[in-house]
Amino acid sequence: MNKDFISSEFQLLQDRICKEIETIDGLQLFIEDKWTREEGGGGRTRIIQNGSIIEKGGVAFSKVNGPITDLMKKQMGLDGNEFFATGVSIVLHPTNPHIPIIHMNVRYFEMDNGEYWFGGGIDLTPHYIVPEQAKEFHLGLKNICDKYNSAFYQKFKNWADDYFFIPHRNETRGIGGIFFDHLQANESISKENIFNFCIELGDTFSKLYNYQVECGKYIPATDEQIKWRNLRRGRYVEFNLVNDRGTKFGLVSGGRTESILMSLPANASWEYNYLPINDSKEIQTLDLLKKGLDWML
Amino acid sequence: MNKDFISSEFQLLQDRICKEIETIDGLQLFIEDKWTREEGGGGRTRIIQNGSIIEKGGVAFSKVNGPITDLMKKQMGLDGNEFFATGVSIVLHPTNPHIPIIHMNVRYFEMDNGEYWFGGGIDLTPHYIVPEQAKEFHLGLKNICDKYNSAFYQKFKNWADDYFFIPHRNETRGIGGIFFDHLQANESISKENIFNFCIELGDTFSKLYNYQVECGKYIPATDEQIKWRNLRRGRYVEFNLVNDRGTKFGLVSGGRTESILMSLPANASWEYNYLPINDSKEIQTLDLLKKGLDWML
Repeated sequence: MNKDFISSEFQLLQDRICKEIETIDGLQLFIEDKWTREEGGGGRTRIIQNGSIIEKGGVAFSKVNGPITDLMKKQMGLDGNEFFATGVSIVLHPTNPHIPIIHMNVRYFEMDNGEYWFGGGIDLTPHYIVPEQAKEFHLGLKNICDKYNSAFYQKFKNWADDYFFIPHRNETRGIGGIFFDHLQANESISKENIFNFCIELGDTFSKLYNYQVECGKYIPATDEQIKWRNLRRGRYVEFNLVNDRGTKFGLVSGGRTESILMSLPANASWEYNYLPINDSKEIQTLDLLKKGLDWML
Repeated sequence: MNKDFISSEFQLLQDRICKEIETIDGLQLFIEDKWTREEGGGGRTRIIQNGSIIEKGGVAFSKVNGPITDLMKKQMGLDGNEFFATGVSIVLHPTNPHIPIIHMNVRYFEMDNGEYWFGGGIDLTPHYIVPEQAKEFHLGLKNICDKYNSAFYQKFKNWADDYFFIPHRNETRGIGGIFFDHLQANESISKENIFNFCIELGDTFSKLYNYQVECGKYIPATDEQIKWRNLRRGRYVEFNLVNDRGTKFGLVSGGRTESILMSLPANASWEYNYLPINDSKEIQTLDLLKKGLDWML
């Protein structure tokens, strides 16, 4: 299981996911931007815009390599000369506020000293939280996790609660999901099975999202609900630009800005001190943006 | 010239500026939010929304004090037990894309060991750069600077070029202005005159902005120009959330989030890899988002 095999499998995963998202959307196809990087490697950024379901979304594959910079040593605590990194990243912003925003990422990192790890995650950001749908999402993730390690789901679910959190708002980005990093083979899982876990996550992505889309797509949206969607997108922008370590590292380390910021929505709003009215669906959603909730109760 | 005198003068400055902006807008008045801070001090955040000129803007005064935290020691390189900070901050987002976004800030910081400094800045972010208007803006700033120190303008103009810069876009936020920090009395300027310089900047703010408003307010905006305005607002959001040291420090140090993020526009847009057509006014603006331009030529 060498790095080139992993990256070519990730590339095929990108192909499959894009096809599935095109089927879910039913109107628009992805456009592809191929790019290369001076220091080594490149990627294929694929964007879908103004679809029947997806207003703006991206599925990016990249495979990059090069010298380990001082910034990487400092911020990632690395010790080596050359790195290799490959991964698939997805963010989809739907038009209908009754369909959640979704994000997924799987990635592999290797250094010339032989050290490697996998990382990844998937999380859901409903504009309106529906507990039954949140349960279904977490159940789907738990099912995959349990096939590989009985401790994965709870550990990675807690990790997601901590990672997808906006401290300056004291709220989670959404209903969480799973997040993991620095995952290496040990006595309880092989490298091959960590890889299989990542691929299976990727291949379940569209099924999980399709369920959410089907639940929301026929519900008409009022102007007030569109306004709320845009305010929630504002929070998504805040998380990505202020808190997301991957975004920040990508931007300061000279990553490809358009590929990194494909995660931003087509539009977002801010209103000073906005507070929804009591007992509204909006307030119910805010009340559920907390760490540590067990969605499967 | 003690700290309480400085903060009460800053508070009066806020009053004057708010009145002047209300006159410029001619429709809406500011609403005020008074807040206090557990560790000491508080502020008056004033917001204007949906005006005839200003779509969303804020003029904030604050006066806070408390123990110097480890974070402040680390990020600001401070050495002391207690701090005191007071200032006035302004950001105005106009509705008409032919009127620029404007920002101003004056602040005073003091530690219990007696060390103090002033900081501040004012910069303009036109959605469409008009060189004659940029010249007028910089000329106004130079006139104030020259009254206090013949070296101020060039030094603070360069500082603004460096500060109001978006590295991941390789573009400046706008046409710059002036920026200064850690300004202390020395052989060429007294503490009183630094203070007077800050107050004069504040008192010239509305006159400088009114000129910009008058130049743009009668120019009708097309849908394409509104779209461009929203994309430029997206860049403003990126700068404030990714690059602005004041915003970042405020958010991680537990500042009042709504007051800090009053700088964000009512809405902003992102479109993957958007590039205006050749020879358009939009491209002309992009070409001028560079450091080191002499606007007074």
